[in-house]
Parts: sequence; structure tokens; C-alpha cells
Amino acid sequence: MSIKNAFYAQSGGVTAVINASACGVIETARQHSDKIGKVYAGRNGIIGALREELIDTSIESVEDIAALKHTPSGAFGSCRYKLKNFEENKREYERLIEVFQAHNIGYFFYNGGGDSQDTAYKVSQLSEKMGYPITCIGVPKTVDNDLPFTDCCPGFGSVAKYVAISTKEAAMDIKSMCESSTKVFILEVMGRHAGWIAAAGGLAGQNSDEAPHIILFPEVPFDRETFLARVDEAVKKHGYCVIVASEGAQYEDGRFVADAGQKDAFGHTQLGGVAPTLANMVKQALGYKYHWAVADYLQRAARHIASRTDVEQAYAMGKAAVEFAVSGKNAVMPIIVRENSSPYKWSISEAPLSQVANQEKKMPIHYITDDGYGITAECREYLSPLIQGEDYPPYDDAGMPRYVNLVNKVIEKKLRTDFEI
Amino acid sequence: MSIKNAFYAQSGGVTAVINASACGVIETARQHSDKIGKVYAGRNGIIGALREELIDTSIESVEDIAALKHTPSGAFGSCRYKLKNFEENKREYERLIEVFQAHNIGYFFYNGGGDSQDTAYKVSQLSEKMGYPITCIGVPKTVDNDLPFTDCCPGFGSVAKYVAISTKEAAMDIKSMCESSTKVFILEVMGRHAGWIAAAGGLAGQNSDEAPHIILFPEVPFDRETFLARVDEAVKKHGYCVIVASEGAQYEDGRFVADAGQKDAFGHTQLGGVAPTLANMVKQALGYKYHWAVADYLQRAARHIASRTDVEQAYAMGKAAVEFAVSGKNAVMPIIVRENSSPYKWSISEAPLSQVANQEKKMPIHYITDDGYGITAECREYLSPLIQGEDYPPYDDAGMPRYVNLVNKVIEKKLRTDFEI
Repeated sequence: MSIKNAFYAQSGGVTAVINASACGVIETARQHSDKIGKVYAGRNGIIGALREELIDTSIESVEDIAALKHTPSGAFGSCRYKLKNFEENKREYERLIEVFQAHNIGYFFYNGGGDSQDTAYKVSQLSEKMGYPITCIGVPKTVDNDLPFTDCCPGFGSVAKYVAISTKEAAMDIKSMCESSTKVFILEVMGRHAGWIAAAGGLAGQNSDEAPHIILFPEVPFDRETFLARVDEAVKKHGYCVIVASEGAQYEDGRFVADAGQKDAFGHTQLGGVAPTLANMVKQALGYKYHWAVADYLQRAARHIASRTDVEQAYAMGKAAVEFAVSGKNAVMPIIVRENSSPYKWSISEAPLSQVANQEKKMPIHYITDDGYGITAECREYLSPLIQGEDYPPYDDAGMPRYVNLVNKVIEKKLRTDFEI
Repeated sequence: MSIKNAFYAQSGGVTAVINASACGVIETARQHSDKIGKVYAGRNGIIGALREELIDTSIESVEDIAALKHTPSGAFGSCRYKLKNFEENKREYERLIEVFQAHNIGYFFYNGGGDSQDTAYKVSQLSEKMGYPITCIGVPKTVDNDLPFTDCCPGFGSVAKYVAISTKEAAMDIKSMCESSTKVFILEVMGRHAGWIAAAGGLAGQNSDEAPHIILFPEVPFDRETFLARVDEAVKKHGYCVIVASEGAQYEDGRFVADAGQKDAFGHTQLGGVAPTLANMVKQALGYKYHWAVADYLQRAARHIASRTDVEQAYAMGKAAVEFAVSGKNAVMPIIVRENSSPYKWSISEAPLSQVANQEKKMPIHYITDDGYGITAECREYLSPLIQGEDYPPYDDAGMPRYVNLVNKVIEKKLRTDFEI
């Protein structure tokens, strides 16, 4: 078997640990120099392949590649760009083949969520549909935890830990203040279609008497009256009320509680503002003094408080992807299999890309309490292991984390044509 | 000298390290049992004294008191309650004396910001104006960093560290995404009257070419056109723009930017918050895709990423307060004196409560760059030491910080009358 180069790219929203997966891919590929030559990273994801903007990771030092493991964000740039079907845009696939051929690329590692695994699947069909032989392995990543087959998704555990801790800390804050000041605190978290991240807020307390007193899931239709009654009840019983609200919280008819009216490249509605909307609702109806926070990027970028379990799994997925590839597997994605919850044990298996793509795993309904506002013991058992362990980045003398900046040298183009995205 | 009990209370907005000051007070008082009997903590601050709700800290274990050092929020409850002048409400002062007398209280430690030091000052006058002998020492605390005399305020360093790190992490996130997605990110931080916290965001980068590209201070009048031009310039130059905005950002005429009363695409009033208001402004004028976050309580409660310097200073202020008291000082507040910036060296001195009360220390204007959107080298030199060092709380096996819950036993009342706040 001849030596081929590899293409690795990051796709979709970045996370605190997607670079740990990159680290796993690159370090493992370096150990398989009999089969894999250079690892080229796409500058800004798949766009880098289309534009022939390939970053040569071989010039990065061993130390800098290792430092990816504790560096958040996408070190090579990510993108929100979805390949169309072969029939709709054959030109894109022809371009990919041109670029891959020009740089002797025989391995394709694509690190992303559901939409991205769709792209990975399409690329895996290049061999069959267009006669270009390529080994294509997906690397799972998404804070939304909504990929099928895998027990959890790298990226989620760290957001979950951030949200659980932040909820706990803010709850302690408002508890201190509620006698003479703020009575209601609302934390808005990510999770457009699935309530996984909001559910993680539930780990801040042990039961419904502890904050958060209310969790709003996209899976449970929002009812203004019931919600307000619940807020009032919590304030009267505990002196304060803490709410964790998913950005995807929606009414029975599907209208989002907050709808910013924008759409992204995938046609998804861009959300924001559940927290202030709820705060206003509480103020109008109950008159309680409130505070609200919107974590937004802070939650998915918070490498400073990443889950060690998550970091290890993210690295392991990148490593497994390369091991799968060199062992002759194709068109698959490594997945995490839960062997046991307490103590937590997990192993690695695989799922076919053809089945991973474009499927969304929702929260099981029995993870949500009957009243719709909390998490069940089963949900707790599922979530808890994912936030276990800390994995602090190193800090410099000035008190800031030492996140790595790679050289990111784009290699010289070999093709004469540019490609318009 | 006879043994007297002490009263300690937390006041105003709580912080990640106010309990470290409580720890300093209680541990040090326990070492001076020849002069100080029990330390009673006010349940919900000074309100606890007025209502005769005194928490007996002597029943708390050595371990639990030590754990206060790594526990955020106000362990005994805080309050937003300001004593009126003697002339306006003599009844309150008479009540304090009744309660103090009933419980043999001869020391008063009040842990708070400017308003709270005003209360401490008034209590210190009890001896002179009402003939009740009491030793009264203020303990500085405020995330706003606006107390006079002291070089910095316990509580601020940890918010500063949180904001600097969060800005850096979010900036790395948007940098990864900006090629095909979000171009502008706005982080709203606390600081209604002074830009100290916003300034700390500036530590995320080394110069104006690094994020944050724009900082909005309450001290600099907000100008929509200049701001938008600056955003556009950053996006064109760097591909993205990161903005740290103080909640107190305001127009020339004193109107808060957050109160701008804008409407979204659907004609709904845009709800509170500088960040969403600015985001909307950017969207309308420049059309860039944006994300925004409002840190709110998360920033001041984030003990998980507290500054070690801040924790040490918070503890030292509590300790010094007790040492001042037992050495016969009165009506003063310990302060932090900067001996050197690099390497950072500080010592402890004191300021008279009469002069501390109701003064606000603004950011020096030479800490802000001439264009009004960044911090100067001098500001950097001031801020940088305050975020030095990490001081992680211990974690349990489930991956959550072990913050302490004290027993908080309120002692039996001795007075027959209740007091209406």
C-alpha cells in the first residue's frame, strides 16, 4: 500500500475539545508514517479543500500539536458549509477530487456534527460515484449531543460541566441576595432542538428543592401560565427561583420563545434572547426583581473548566478515526459506547456514515420529569459521568491560559484555477 | 479587657471571594479568644442584626470554615440595605444597640463596598453619638473596584480573570467561525458606573490587533457612528470583531445604551441589555451575523476560575480587620497597597471609614486609549497582577466543585420585640 496524505477538517460550531480530536488525529497519523504521509488541515473546514487552502500540520512542533489538547476553538478554522447533493452540484465534488489528486490525498477525516457527517458521507461516495479512491472517516463533535449511535458527543461533556457549575454558582449568588434583592435568575443555554445542555443545568442540584427549580426544554411545549405559577411557587417556597432555559424553548405551535428572525447557511433559525423574554414575562406578571445571563459562546469555548472525560473522549475519537483508516475501514465514524455508568466505563465502536448523517438524537422523554420542568434520576445517571474530572490548561505568569497558536502555514497551490464558494 | 463577641456581616452584591474574607475574619477571631468570644454572622447582612437573627459561627467545624475560602456567594446571606442617617432613623440605631447589648457584641465587622462602608461608618459613630462602645472595622469588597484608598478591591480580581479568560476563549471561537459564519461577538459585563471590569476584557489580547477590538466604557460617551465604523474596520481587517461592553455604556447625554428602546425585525421591543442592543445596531447598519453573551451573575460567582491573588487579598483583608480590632484600632478599613507591579508586591495599610464612605473611584482617564476603545499599557500594568495565579476549589467524584454549606444556626432571640425592616 502506497503512502497517501490525509485531509483533516473541522466543521460547524467549534467546542472546547474539538482541537483535542485534532490532536488525536495528528499525533496518531504521525505514528503511522508507513501509511499516512502528511496531515493537511483544511483552512476553515471543507472550504479549505475547495479553495485548495491546505495547512501543513507537519511543520508544527510536537509540543504545539500536544497543546491542541488543552486549546479551545477550531485551530485551523471551521465553517458552516454543507455540500449539496451530487446531482445538484457535481462541480464541488469534481473540485474536491482535483484538489485531493493534486496533493496525493487518500484519507479524509471530518470532525463535526450531524450536518458535517452528511458531508463526510458524501465524500465517502467519491470512490463509488466518481472513481476516486478515498478512505473517509467521520470524527464526532457537537455540543448539542444529538448524534445518533454514539452514547455521547465530544464537546457536550465540557459544555455540560460549564453549565452545571455556572448554574450552581449563580444559584448560590442569588440565594445570598434574595432576602432584600433579586428573586429570579434565568440562565439561557444552547440547544436548538434538543434539551441536553439545559438538562445539564440540573446537575447543579440534587432534587427539585435545589436550584435550578425550573428547566425549560425544547422538547416540552412552553406554557406561560404554568411557568409563571411555577416561578411564583419557587420564590414563595425557597425565597428565589433559578431557571435554566434552552435557547430552543418553544410554544406548543412551534414558535420559539425567542426568535431573532435570522437564518444561517443551513437554513436554521438563529436564536437568542429567551432569557430576557422570560425575565420580562416574570417582571410583568409577578413583579419580582430578576437577573438573567446568556452564556452563548462562553459555554462552548470554556476550555478553562472542561470535563476531563470529554477531553479524553475527544482525543480518543480522533485517534480511533486514524486507526480505523489505517486498518482499512471506510465510511464509518467512531462512537462512544457506555459499558457502565457507575463507575463510568466506556469503549469505542463504530457506526456507518450512511446512517449517522442527518439524524438527530432527541432527549428520551423519560429523562424529563412528568411536570416537564426537571430531570429524572435516569437522566442524572446518564449525564453525571460526562462531567467527571477536571483537565486544566497550563497558565502563564500573567494568569492567562496558555492556548496554542499554530503556525498554520498554507501550502503552495498546485491547481491553476480558483474556486468560488 | 473583657471578652466581647463579634458581629460580622456581608453586604451588597456578593463575589467569588467574599467568603474568603469571612474565613479570614472567623479563623483570626478564633485565634484571639482572649479578646473575642463568639463571631455571630448576620443572617442576610445588617438585616440580621436588626432582626436579631444571629448565626453562631462557633458551631461550624474548622474544616467548614476553611472551606469558605473556596466557596463563592455570601455564606450567611447578604443584603442591599442602607442605614439612614441618625437624624432620619434613630430607631434603627437604637435597635442595633439593643441587639448588640443583648448579645454582648463589642466588635462589628462589615464586609462590603462603598454603600456598606457608609453603614460601617455610621455604626462606628454609635460610641460617640449614643454611648455604646463598639469597635468597628470595614472589610473591603466589591467587584466594581471602585473603593477609594485601596489599590484594588477583593472580588474584582476574580471577575477580571473570568472576563479576561472568557473574552479570550470566545474570541478564539469566533475567529474559527468567521470565514463563513459569525463576524461580531459582544460580551456584556458588569460595571454600571466604572469601566474596570470591561477594561479587564482587554487582558485577553496584547494590543489593538488582538481581540477584544473594542471595549465600551461608561467613562467614554458612546457614539453610534464611530462605533459602527470601528466594528466594520475590525471585520474588514481581521475577519471578525470582538466587543466587550460595560453594562453602564452610555451616550453623551447620559442615556444608557441598554435603554435605547430598539425594536427587532418583528416590531417587538428589544429587551434590556447592552449586548443585544449593540448586536441589533450592528445587524441593522452593517448586516453582519452576530452572537452576544451577557455574563451577569456568572462573572462574579465564578469561583471555579478565581484569581489566586484575589483570594489571598480577600482572606488577608478579613484577617487584618480582626487584627486591627484586637490591637485597638477603630473606624478604619484595611486597604491593599501596591508596592510593585512587576513582580507584584503588596502590603496592607488602613483608611478611615469616615473618608471611605460614599466615595467612588473611577478609572483614571489615562487608562483608556485616546480613541476611547481600548486600554493603555499603564492600565495593563495595573490590571495584570490582579488576575495572577489560579486557586481551584476541590471537586467531588461527580465533577462538581465542593462548595460548603454551613449549618447556619440562628441563635435564640433574647429580645421580646420584632423589628420591621
